[in-house]
Amino acid sequence: MLGNTFGRIFRVTTAGEAFGTALAGIVEGVPAGTPLQEADLQADLDRRKPGQSEIATPRIESDRVRILAGTLDGVTTGAPIALVIDNEWATPERIAAYAGEKDVIKPGHATYTYFEKFGVHRDWIADGRANGRETAMRVAAGAIAKRLLAAWGVEIFAFTRALGGIRCPDLPIEVIRAHADDPPVRCPDPEVAKRMLARALEAKACGDSIGGIVEVVARGAPVGWGEPVFDKLDGNLARALMSIGSIKGVEIGAGFAVAGMLGSENNDLPVVIDGGIRFETNHAGGILGGISTGEDIVARVAVKPTPTIATEQRTVDLVTRERTTFRCVTASDPTIVPRMIPIAEAMTALVLIDHALLARAASHGKEP
Amino acid sequence: MLGNTFGRIFRVTTAGEAFGTALAGIVEGVPAGTPLQEADLQADLDRRKPGQSEIATPRIESDRVRILAGTLDGVTTGAPIALVIDNEWATPERIAAYAGEKDVIKPGHATYTYFEKFGVHRDWIADGRANGRETAMRVAAGAIAKRLLAAWGVEIFAFTRALGGIRCPDLPIEVIRAHADDPPVRCPDPEVAKRMLARALEAKACGDSIGGIVEVVARGAPVGWGEPVFDKLDGNLARALMSIGSIKGVEIGAGFAVAGMLGSENNDLPVVIDGGIRFETNHAGGILGGISTGEDIVARVAVKPTPTIATEQRTVDLVTRERTTFRCVTASDPTIVPRMIPIAEAMTALVLIDHALLARAASHGKEP
Amino acid sequence: MLGNTFGRIFRVTTAGEAFGTALAGIVEGVPAGTPLQEADLQADLDRRKPGQSEIATPRIESDRVRILAGTLDGVTTGAPIALVIDNEWATPERIAAYAGEKDVIKPGHATYTYFEKFGVHRDWIADGRANGRETAMRVAAGAIAKRLLAAWGVEIFAFTRALGGIRCPDLPIEVIRAHADDPPVRCPDPEVAKRMLARALEAKACGDSIGGIVEVVARGAPVGWGEPVFDKLDGNLARALMSIGSIKGVEIGAGFAVAGMLGSENNDLPVVIDGGIRFETNHAGGILGGISTGEDIVARVAVKPTPTIATEQRTVDLVTRERTTFRCVTASDPTIVPRMIPIAEAMTALVLIDHALLARAASHGKEP
Amino acid sequence: MLGNTFGRIFRVTTAGEAFGTALAGIVEGVPAGTPLQEADLQADLDRRKPGQSEIATPRIESDRVRILAGTLDGVTTGAPIALVIDNEWATPERIAAYAGEKDVIKPGHATYTYFEKFGVHRDWIADGRANGRETAMRVAAGAIAKRLLAAWGVEIFAFTRALGGIRCPDLPIEVIRAHADDPPVRCPDPEVAKRMLARALEAKACGDSIGGIVEVVARGAPVGWGEPVFDKLDGNLARALMSIGSIKGVEIGAGFAVAGMLGSENNDLPVVIDGGIRFETNHAGGILGGISTGEDIVARVAVKPTPTIATEQRTVDLVTRERTTFRCVTASDPTIVPRMIPIAEAMTALVLIDHALLARAASHGKEP
Repeated sequence: MLGNTFGRIFRVTTAGEAFGTALAGIVEGVPAGTPLQEADLQADLDRRKPGQSEIATPRIESDRVRILAGTLDGVTTGAPIALVIDNEWATPERIAAYAGEKDVIKPGHATYTYFEKFGVHRDWIADGRANGRETAMRVAAGAIAKRLLAAWGVEIFAFTRALGGIRCPDLPIEVIRAHADDPPVRCPDPEVAKRMLARALEAKACGDSIGGIVEVVARGAPVGWGEPVFDKLDGNLARALMSIGSIKGVEIGAGFAVAGMLGSENNDLPVVIDGGIRFETNHAGGILGGISTGEDIVARVAVKPTPTIATEQRTVDLVTRERTTFRCVTASDPTIVPRMIPIAEAMTALVLIDHALLARAASHGKEP
Repeated sequence: MLGNTFGRIFRVTTAGEAFGTALAGIVEGVPAGTPLQEADLQADLDRRKPGQSEIATPRIESDRVRILAGTLDGVTTGAPIALVIDNEWATPERIAAYAGEKDVIKPGHATYTYFEKFGVHRDWIADGRANGRETAMRVAAGAIAKRLLAAWGVEIFAFTRALGGIRCPDLPIEVIRAHADDPPVRCPDPEVAKRMLARALEAKACGDSIGGIVEVVARGAPVGWGEPVFDKLDGNLARALMSIGSIKGVEIGAGFAVAGMLGSENNDLPVVIDGGIRFETNHAGGILGGISTGEDIVARVAVKPTPTIATEQRTVDLVTRERTTFRCVTASDPTIVPRMIPIAEAMTALVLIDHALLARAASHGKEP
Repeated sequence: MLGNTFGRIFRVTTAGEAFGTALAGIVEGVPAGTPLQEADLQADLDRRKPGQSEIATPRIESDRVRILAGTLDGVTTGAPIALVIDNEWATPERIAAYAGEKDVIKPGHATYTYFEKFGVHRDWIADGRANGRETAMRVAAGAIAKRLLAAWGVEIFAFTRALGGIRCPDLPIEVIRAHADDPPVRCPDPEVAKRMLARALEAKACGDSIGGIVEVVARGAPVGWGEPVFDKLDGNLARALMSIGSIKGVEIGAGFAVAGMLGSENNDLPVVIDGGIRFETNHAGGILGGISTGEDIVARVAVKPTPTIATEQRTVDLVTRERTTFRCVTASDPTIVPRMIPIAEAMTALVLIDHALLARAASHGKEP
Repeated sequence: MLGNTFGRIFRVTTAGEAFGTALAGIVEGVPAGTPLQEADLQADLDRRKPGQSEIATPRIESDRVRILAGTLDGVTTGAPIALVIDNEWATPERIAAYAGEKDVIKPGHATYTYFEKFGVHRDWIADGRANGRETAMRVAAGAIAKRLLAAWGVEIFAFTRALGGIRCPDLPIEVIRAHADDPPVRCPDPEVAKRMLARALEAKACGDSIGGIVEVVARGAPVGWGEPVFDKLDGNLARALMSIGSIKGVEIGAGFAVAGMLGSENNDLPVVIDGGIRFETNHAGGILGGISTGEDIVARVAVKPTPTIATEQRTVDLVTRERTTFRCVTASDPTIVPRMIPIAEAMTALVLIDHALLARAASHGKEP
């Protein structure tokens, strides 16, 4: 597993599994002098943590983050920040409940690929590091990134654009912003949210699960972030979002819809507003040539239905290679879409802050 | 522009603009002992090069690649491979034809973002490095990657899945493979291809352009490639594909369709075939937990309609910030989808070979 | 502080200050299936830890390392390994003892550079991250690297080659190996060690300190590790060793002596022994063209005298910029040379394991 | 060969062998708007190029560099800069002269390590990429770095501190600066230079070679460059300098002499001069805690005697593994020390500019 560091300047390194002792993270690139206390990171962790609604997994975690290094008297020192989140749920009894899953390929999970890649010694308990639990540390790191981005005037928010086939209609951005986080579905249209919730509960009742689409918006990023040709802003955003478990697609702005548009429709026409250049439309999703345009950066990700379902499925035993069946008996979410919101925000924040720092390093046309 | 290197072990670094002297590339990570001559790279370059059909730009380039370093007597030496492709089309007369575009924001292009990021000294001729011309070097490097992947039994091919709103139906994979490259549209269904061509010519006649979807398939990759949690195979594939100009979306396997599926539908059930584990379906697109499953790796990208159109568009002057109009008078493609095929293959190859080498470095469960 | 990760494949990321809560580390690239328990890391930590002799700082730390992630039942899983070492010495009372040092430039320390780089919010307590305490995590990570190297037959040991101007004569390598760790001086010649100790105690009595030279030897590395032209084995070894605080010079093999040698003297002549190629001499220190030769890899580092001395020194106040004086009242070592031994070993191990994995990735002349 | 890129922000990637077609380089991180023409790079290339004196190799190269990309009308555009230097000396006849060396281990060269690492397909002609010829591209890239550093007020110069056992005494820095480049020895003391030259000619007459010490000074770097704990300025400087072929040692400031000093002697005491903090002495060589202090950055490297000598040496045949002898019949330098001057300057420049850009990215205590 050689990919546990993200970013070039603002670098986040994480470790930790679903039922290990704790999650750990080291965050580099935070300038000295930023007020930062544990409570500042907790808000986003609380938004991600399990056990918050009837459509989320019943696992209970306080997800309390501790800062072990990098701050002094509540202010960053310029040194790397070390974070730890204990796995409180990981008791021997609960681990024992997974014993029957050890050698069974769980459909839709990383069970098979981890077994083949890492061998018999992989951490198999609830899929170990492949479990969504690792994203708690992404959210903690992302909360630091968000604080720094705020100084540039950048705000990031995400919401449930679609769930179980039900799509949230287009709404004024200020409505979205105000209601993006409305529990439990995090869809800003209350009527649609109600239908989405019903769909999720229905799937849960059937021992099944549903997928959806999360949309993330970053407002206020200046023009100029992104490093062609391989570290374009959209490329790195796609990597960041696709690196979240269960994500099967990423699109920017008009996204896949561009495939059916004419050039004359899709091109965003520039206009001058208050002396500054803006665009009449934002099909580009705030990125042109891999560089931010100053418009809202808009990305959508496709979230697959939770693979852990209560229905019995045909499968294969990893060791004997004989046919068997699998039915999940442990904690699960009928949908992970609402919990994906803070994770998508975090990954977007990590990409943006890294590009902000990279852009500052290069400093074209300035002296020296 | 701080992002001109791709990959961690198999590293590709490129330089070059649309109307500069030449494109340059350095490819690192090619093992010694691989037969490699210029002709070996030319086939893919010829598939990408302009001027091949009535729906491609009339720019004419031989795109002849020269190997300056890294081989001896037609065999790689283990040293980095230096490649150069001259820009034959870039004569002073043709450059002069762009003079009128210098200070105009060309809608849908990187004109504005490059001006703001790099200032007055950016290369503005046909958008310089933001022009698709740089992809020729990606294709050359990708051709090296493909050769190495062939030794692992991996084959990569792409085709036009949709063009101008017309979608190619599902076909047997062997039909796709055999006809993926059929000119000029590169859609393996001849009837659909005919309709696509008509649509493209219609757009051209109107001075407009169309977008589409390219699907890329990698066959034969073993289970085990991909490095969680930030260098997952799908994450890096998304970055690689999204880093190509004009791409606005990437999806893996079932992609955005998962948003409307049930868990019980979407999960691919494992089966044993000839003693090996395979899957009944491949909604995962060959990747689970960020690691290849051994099934076909399937990705689709959304290609926007060529922003360069012959229709007059409202825009703004970069310097005066006054309203003006722009209509393209230089070479352009009514659609770039067919030319995107070898580029998508190349980027897929670069990702796969890098992950193949990374996976070999880690060597879990083997000695030492 | 943007440099807290070391290595390309075997990557170590650290955080932590002298008087913070704890040191943290994340180690990536450890293959699954390696037995690894906390006790396995403790031996080297015990060799580095303070409070072991009359010539080492009286700070007392158990330096007990905890593994938070990356192992299951005492075996690595392929996931990144998270390590924590608590700072037990860091009580509020002991921190208070440093209060008088806050705004004084401590000669020979990083006080001034940290203040200028990070500003008033840097961690100033015992120089925070610039304090040698961070090397405890290097040693813990190095202990993992050593275990992996043992599987390749590589053994690493270091010893005090010189202390306070007294130089250990050349000894048979087996004598060095057997006595490299002899306390308290870690010089394998007992007579010389006795004189070195006396010199250190003499300096201590005068409120002064002494420097020395540490020599590190890696035996058993095969020919072929090192990646020209910028990641040569000697280049990365130099970086690794020079990155340790207080090191002012690094030399390989004959080192600076080559400046006075003739080519005919310095060239190591190859011979065949038992069918394998060896060299009559090893002025190259086991590295030619940046690649290991199979001979012992030999490096020496110059360790400056501990800057913390009990003698009063002229200096300047950071804030008022007025002249003042400084005399250390807190814990210090009259020499840090013996404690440098396990640190130099650790950094050598980190470089070698990373190059071992890199070399395996490339796999020249092998299939595929 | 996986190490052909240097730097994190200002990244240089090179390729090319002694008798290949050409050397190639791509330089990333150069801000847009910097005047840069081929002639600007030629001065340093001319200082490195062979054939300049009776103590340098008679190989003749114009070392003319061509800029293929990254500039427009003589000004950088922000895009990566592609450079090519043709190998004019590499004619088939001259290559043929090396035929007899193909399978012989040349003592002191990388012949054996390259053969073992890369196999029979390595480029064996004059050691291919292991030959010092690749440093021409380092010098070209370094010349770009020097231009950028000049905007920060940083000047870099190097000189021959010792040659063949003769050491240049300490001289006023302005004398060194004025005469650092005096041909042919590049030792600023004319009397000492005369003796050095005599020593070199004497060695040449005997068919032998001599080594020496190059000292490099960087003046004007501000306090604050360097990224603890693994990317310290001295660590990266050591790596950069040690990565040059034939370098066996690197020291900073007092270097190995610190091993014999007392803390009270070695500590540089701060003073206030014109309101700014300076140091009474500079044993630290301008770097404390891995960060520049604002004083001169001073490094010395030990250069081994050219391994290519005209005297017959015992050796072994790579293929038959039988004893044989080797005597060089092709071009060689009796000493490479004077030609090492511009190379050491270039590598120092590459390190400093990269750290300057990294430091700017982090921007501690500034907004945002």
